[in-house]
Amino acid sequence: MTTRPLWDKGHAALDAAAQEFCAGDDVVLDRQLIGHDIRASTAHVRGLQRIGVLTGAEADALVAGLADLDGLVRAGTFVLDERFEDCHSAIEWYLGERLGDVGRKVHTGRSRNDQILVAVRLYLQSSLATLRDRCLDCADACLQRAESTQDVALPGYTHLQRAVPSSLAALLAGHAEAFLDDAETARATARTLDSSPLGTAAGYGVNLPLDRDGVARELGFSRVQVSPIYAQNSRGKLELLAVQSLHQALLDVRRLAWDLSLFSTAEFAFVRLPDAYTTGSSIMPNKRNPDVVELLRAVPSVTEGAMSELSSLLSLPSGYHRDLQATKAPVLRAFTRGLAGLALVPALVHTLELDVARMRAAIDPELYATDRAVELARAGVPFRDAYRQAAAEMHDLKDRSPEASLRARVSLGGPGNLGLDRLRARLDALR
Amino acid sequence: MTTRPLWDKGHAALDAAAQEFCAGDDVVLDRQLIGHDIRASTAHVRGLQRIGVLTGAEADALVAGLADLDGLVRAGTFVLDERFEDCHSAIEWYLGERLGDVGRKVHTGRSRNDQILVAVRLYLQSSLATLRDRCLDCADACLQRAESTQDVALPGYTHLQRAVPSSLAALLAGHAEAFLDDAETARATARTLDSSPLGTAAGYGVNLPLDRDGVARELGFSRVQVSPIYAQNSRGKLELLAVQSLHQALLDVRRLAWDLSLFSTAEFAFVRLPDAYTTGSSIMPNKRNPDVVELLRAVPSVTEGAMSELSSLLSLPSGYHRDLQATKAPVLRAFTRGLAGLALVPALVHTLELDVARMRAAIDPELYATDRAVELARAGVPFRDAYRQAAAEMHDLKDRSPEASLRARVSLGGPGNLGLDRLRARLDALR
Amino acid sequence: MTTRPLWDKGHAALDAAAQEFCAGDDVVLDRQLIGHDIRASTAHVRGLQRIGVLTGAEADALVAGLADLDGLVRAGTFVLDERFEDCHSAIEWYLGERLGDVGRKVHTGRSRNDQILVAVRLYLQSSLATLRDRCLDCADACLQRAESTQDVALPGYTHLQRAVPSSLAALLAGHAEAFLDDAETARATARTLDSSPLGTAAGYGVNLPLDRDGVARELGFSRVQVSPIYAQNSRGKLELLAVQSLHQALLDVRRLAWDLSLFSTAEFAFVRLPDAYTTGSSIMPNKRNPDVVELLRAVPSVTEGAMSELSSLLSLPSGYHRDLQATKAPVLRAFTRGLAGLALVPALVHTLELDVARMRAAIDPELYATDRAVELARAGVPFRDAYRQAAAEMHDLKDRSPEASLRARVSLGGPGNLGLDRLRARLDALR
Amino acid sequence: MTTRPLWDKGHAALDAAAQEFCAGDDVVLDRQLIGHDIRASTAHVRGLQRIGVLTGAEADALVAGLADLDGLVRAGTFVLDERFEDCHSAIEWYLGERLGDVGRKVHTGRSRNDQILVAVRLYLQSSLATLRDRCLDCADACLQRAESTQDVALPGYTHLQRAVPSSLAALLAGHAEAFLDDAETARATARTLDSSPLGTAAGYGVNLPLDRDGVARELGFSRVQVSPIYAQNSRGKLELLAVQSLHQALLDVRRLAWDLSLFSTAEFAFVRLPDAYTTGSSIMPNKRNPDVVELLRAVPSVTEGAMSELSSLLSLPSGYHRDLQATKAPVLRAFTRGLAGLALVPALVHTLELDVARMRAAIDPELYATDRAVELARAGVPFRDAYRQAAAEMHDLKDRSPEASLRARVSLGGPGNLGLDRLRARLDALR
Repeated sequence: MTTRPLWDKGHAALDAAAQEFCAGDDVVLDRQLIGHDIRASTAHVRGLQRIGVLTGAEADALVAGLADLDGLVRAGTFVLDERFEDCHSAIEWYLGERLGDVGRKVHTGRSRNDQILVAVRLYLQSSLATLRDRCLDCADACLQRAESTQDVALPGYTHLQRAVPSSLAALLAGHAEAFLDDAETARATARTLDSSPLGTAAGYGVNLPLDRDGVARELGFSRVQVSPIYAQNSRGKLELLAVQSLHQALLDVRRLAWDLSLFSTAEFAFVRLPDAYTTGSSIMPNKRNPDVVELLRAVPSVTEGAMSELSSLLSLPSGYHRDLQATKAPVLRAFTRGLAGLALVPALVHTLELDVARMRAAIDPELYATDRAVELARAGVPFRDAYRQAAAEMHDLKDRSPEASLRARVSLGGPGNLGLDRLRARLDALR
Repeated sequence: MTTRPLWDKGHAALDAAAQEFCAGDDVVLDRQLIGHDIRASTAHVRGLQRIGVLTGAEADALVAGLADLDGLVRAGTFVLDERFEDCHSAIEWYLGERLGDVGRKVHTGRSRNDQILVAVRLYLQSSLATLRDRCLDCADACLQRAESTQDVALPGYTHLQRAVPSSLAALLAGHAEAFLDDAETARATARTLDSSPLGTAAGYGVNLPLDRDGVARELGFSRVQVSPIYAQNSRGKLELLAVQSLHQALLDVRRLAWDLSLFSTAEFAFVRLPDAYTTGSSIMPNKRNPDVVELLRAVPSVTEGAMSELSSLLSLPSGYHRDLQATKAPVLRAFTRGLAGLALVPALVHTLELDVARMRAAIDPELYATDRAVELARAGVPFRDAYRQAAAEMHDLKDRSPEASLRARVSLGGPGNLGLDRLRARLDALR
Repeated sequence: MTTRPLWDKGHAALDAAAQEFCAGDDVVLDRQLIGHDIRASTAHVRGLQRIGVLTGAEADALVAGLADLDGLVRAGTFVLDERFEDCHSAIEWYLGERLGDVGRKVHTGRSRNDQILVAVRLYLQSSLATLRDRCLDCADACLQRAESTQDVALPGYTHLQRAVPSSLAALLAGHAEAFLDDAETARATARTLDSSPLGTAAGYGVNLPLDRDGVARELGFSRVQVSPIYAQNSRGKLELLAVQSLHQALLDVRRLAWDLSLFSTAEFAFVRLPDAYTTGSSIMPNKRNPDVVELLRAVPSVTEGAMSELSSLLSLPSGYHRDLQATKAPVLRAFTRGLAGLALVPALVHTLELDVARMRAAIDPELYATDRAVELARAGVPFRDAYRQAAAEMHDLKDRSPEASLRARVSLGGPGNLGLDRLRARLDALR
Repeated sequence: MTTRPLWDKGHAALDAAAQEFCAGDDVVLDRQLIGHDIRASTAHVRGLQRIGVLTGAEADALVAGLADLDGLVRAGTFVLDERFEDCHSAIEWYLGERLGDVGRKVHTGRSRNDQILVAVRLYLQSSLATLRDRCLDCADACLQRAESTQDVALPGYTHLQRAVPSSLAALLAGHAEAFLDDAETARATARTLDSSPLGTAAGYGVNLPLDRDGVARELGFSRVQVSPIYAQNSRGKLELLAVQSLHQALLDVRRLAWDLSLFSTAEFAFVRLPDAYTTGSSIMPNKRNPDVVELLRAVPSVTEGAMSELSSLLSLPSGYHRDLQATKAPVLRAFTRGLAGLALVPALVHTLELDVARMRAAIDPELYATDRAVELARAGVPFRDAYRQAAAEMHDLKDRSPEASLRARVSLGGPGNLGLDRLRARLDALR
């Protein structure tokens, strides 16, 4: 059975192949949105009641019906499938079946256009909140591990070449600060998106004095998106901004994953990934492979693809076009995969096994040359001359120790003055 | 029940969240690949038989088992689901269950690495052949419609401004030639990809004199991909080339969809989309919307996203990395959606309803100015002077007719000399 | 003459082709950065003075030298060219030539790594401030024009099909709100980037108690980027965030340009672009082409390309890699072109010539069907039934007027209740 | 002085800011195209002569004028600068200045639209030929070095983990085959683009019996692009195909660069980059940095960005739009940078210094486990059982040697049977 389209007026049916093409994965994707749609529909009903378009009894019946549907969806009893064009049709169908005439009143003063806008907006707000939390969890894990490894010397690399003595804690603090920026970006994006498109109908408003402010408040938005045309025009654009926020965090996951991939090679061998994060080979009996780390490194490809996919749709005149339906899939795909990746990071950071001796042993004497050049400069030698003198002496710096070098590197953020307290304070402020 | 991983050697299990993250949609995606995997496995078995690694009886049993599995898969009786890590594991599990020790011999001399490579390569060859055919179908539809509309005058537009008299057939011939180029690109890409990676194992070959040439022939490849390391390194890269070929065709679909979107507005009103390709609005009773055309216009966003997603993965040293598993989803997504879109085009082109009078009426007298300038130039006036003279006269060109203008435009490809026979000949050569 | 590299220690020279390849367009690009570098160098010198590494006299000499160089650069007397590796080398060379030993002290406690980071950060802060201002200028122009055209009826389009009566002011208000969001995004991004990387050296700090907080304050940053490793790791990532902010605004420019491109066709003919924004054809004497509008529509391609280019570089382990030098060109290209495009919009919006009668005439009677359906719903008919009844009646709605329809569309943001005051208030708050 | 636009008809001038925005970098970019434009203009003149539009004397004068201009351009005496709108205007201006009325005849029967199309097409053909040659040079260098290092053992890596014994030659052969595929792709793309757009005017042909076939032959094209509309519609699309071909090759450069970056770390230390390909640090006296390798790794970001930039422009209805002018910059940028990168590879491959002993020493006994499993399988043990047995024995495989393992790996392409002759034969066939 397929339900009748909401727009059915008795015309010839859509060509079957065309219909399948139009449907795409819509109802499957909408499984992630129907909860938000139900919530927004409830607020819409109460708004209609407040302006007298629905009686209290009608509104109560609709709200109760929506609550029941929500329960059925959560329980898995009501499943969105190809019977329905989309979650919006399913909701209206359910209410119609259950409440008859009253059910068919739910769509007064709205269009599927603002209905999908508000459902996606609620989804994005929820996802951005999760993104912020996961970034903070990642930052917290890195900070905790940094706090407990401040004495662990590790070469600092530039160009993948050993450069100067550094510490594991300095590296972890770097990852922590990255995730703090990402949390801040997620929060800022959530604020830009904190506006309700509900009540804009198909992009031109309606001849009803809708209580848009009240509905927005009920849904937790701090303002309404005023212009109905902009509500339409913002579709895809605001999703892109949200995915870009996610991409920022995933680029930092990629960076961390690269470090772990490199440091767990036999050649570096600074860290060992716990068995719970490695797999084997179907042909090579000897292998333990860092699959989790590699798939984390791969995750930003999903956001990158999603952003290109979204941008590619956004060359259109004003107003709704069906092209915009194609914005849904990349956004849902990006957040689903990206948030799952972020969720794995904290435990991975906490359970890494370290080979502290190997890390320390990798600090060759030449790595003290920069320290030496700065010491000379401090003593009055012009830096460029100090640099050349230190280059000449660099193989004679064997009596230095990593620990002393780290202690001396006191510029803020340097291994002798990591500023973990500042990072911790910023983390707390972002929670 | 979950089957035991092929690489199980009794270590601690993978963390549950990590396992889910690693699995991703793999088994679901592999439903599109398992047929190709079975076909390649069959060729692999026969190859092992030829070099004496399997007896005739063993090979026969394995081949029969693979054929049965293929039947079960096609019948929907055997479904790839989360019991399995991937289609490769499923095949080996099935053969082991059914044939015992003999079943566990199928993996001799291969790795899942070359197994997925060959399955994807076969998938791409099949998809590129379909792509070429669909492009030719699109070209054919445009050519046929062009052949029957050579007298239909239509303004030629530049900058969306009416520019010179042209014809509907000239426009359709343009779309036809576009799809011919696309068919050629698909064919050229298929040739570049026409090499068998099977027998390269995990990227370093095996200590067996595998009959790689024979296996390649059996699978319809014209050569082997010689280097096992390149076989690995080409993963994602060759997929990207294939998707780019598809993207070329979809960009032409987008162009055609744009023309139809524009020409079916109330303001242009040159064409009417048949009801079988339009839908309605949930709020506006008066609307008939060109959803199919708009979703066709949206399709290149999928290939665009897929290409970015693939490229984003390809910054790695040589050899296999698990990151490359993430190449599967975008490729399958792109071809599934892209080929579905292309399949709709021919019927759409054939069933367009034309408003011939409106098209002709849109040819304003000023559109003859270029004809006039060229006539003056032909009579010896320097072109730049002729241009200015024609500009001055352009409102006086009212006694001209579109038909005469079209007939006079005899440069090859112009509306008076469309060269449809050349396009038709090229189409035939590409079939 | 080519100056000696800062890192010269007497090794064999770089291969000539390799050197040219490494240099790329660096010095040319650095012409946009040298002013920021000089400003940061000045703050660095004062910081070194505060911690006693430079005497007051030395610092004064260096600051005076930097001020002179800044003057020479602004006057065009000192030109960055292929004599120099980059702007950093040029500054150090100038100070060395002019001040001898004292000049060679400027680089104490810093690296070109944090030098370029801070120069780019200052460039981005300045560019984001300009971006915000230009977005507000665009919003202001749209709002002003909306305020003066509230009575101008215009069909509201969905799917490029006439849908419901709307107004030009409603469309302009939509564009205005879009640019307000963009201004907010620019501001939020500027805040995320509001941290000083200066004093992080090559990613691992230095053995000097640098006054990083003081230097940050002097440069107008509200905090320091604490971790030197993150300072390196953030390269490209924060640029990407900035370009994404710009992209948001340019997508809105594209949308507006599409509207103008469409509305200025002969078929729509709702607006006429002033001569100051159109050009001609080299062959067609009759053409006036909307080149400016089309090039505005093209501008987001630059940001889109720049974002892909940046992302493509960001698959690396921690620490500086020369790959990151390649982040400069796309960022500078994107902001240069994008900000130039935005600067054209206000005058274009102000000088558009309108054909008010044509706009009004495009409102067909069927466009009142939605109004009718809502009226029925308001009177108690279930909306889905009202919808079908209005569909049946829609050709009989000829006695309605656009003006009455607009007045009745009172939901906030609808043409009868545009909420321009809310948008104006938000604009004022964002200035 | 600025020359008068070709389309000048006495209207109000373009707004100054708008004019600068429209001009962009056009004339600077056109410096790379003017030679091709002159060549095409010469063929166009001869074509006009053959159909009697120009007399022999006129044609001779124009051809001589074009040859002189070409000489002036090559000598640097005639420089394209902001006096001109573009190279097309410059050519017509030069001929007009020099030949008077005859000069003003050159534009008969063509538009700047087909003029830029053919100039870019010739540029792409030339660039694709260079691309093919450079890919073959890269393949040749890798093959030569492989031929001389067949005995050099090196671990084969998967997941960056040591996996099985392999050889340096096997790795180099992998890179060689990659570049062979790229050469083939470049050649295939050149064939798809091997059509002349000249004679299509502004997209609708002209009322002249142009000798398009003859002109195409004279320019070395094997066919004409028949449809004038498709000629316009293919703009950007065919450029995208060309850049994608380049991208394929650059992805392989990236892969090679990654190998060198990794193998030249202190931890791997398998290769040493010659001084001619490394640079130093401005702060760290001890550093020698692999900048060239890193910038090679960065190069695909340019093609990636260019492809996104091009695709982003290609959402338009049929016919020319000024948006398409923006296709020039990314194409020229991509080929300039990409071909420069490819040119560096052969010398880099030839001059790499190897640490053969370290490579061999990295082959741990466990790496023989796969060999062992296959041996057991060959002796009749089901592979999955052999795999587990070999896993159990893997630390006891100490008496094996890398050399014996390599010799035994005889599957085609494996280190014991590299198939270099096949690769060499393919290279010869592609020259």
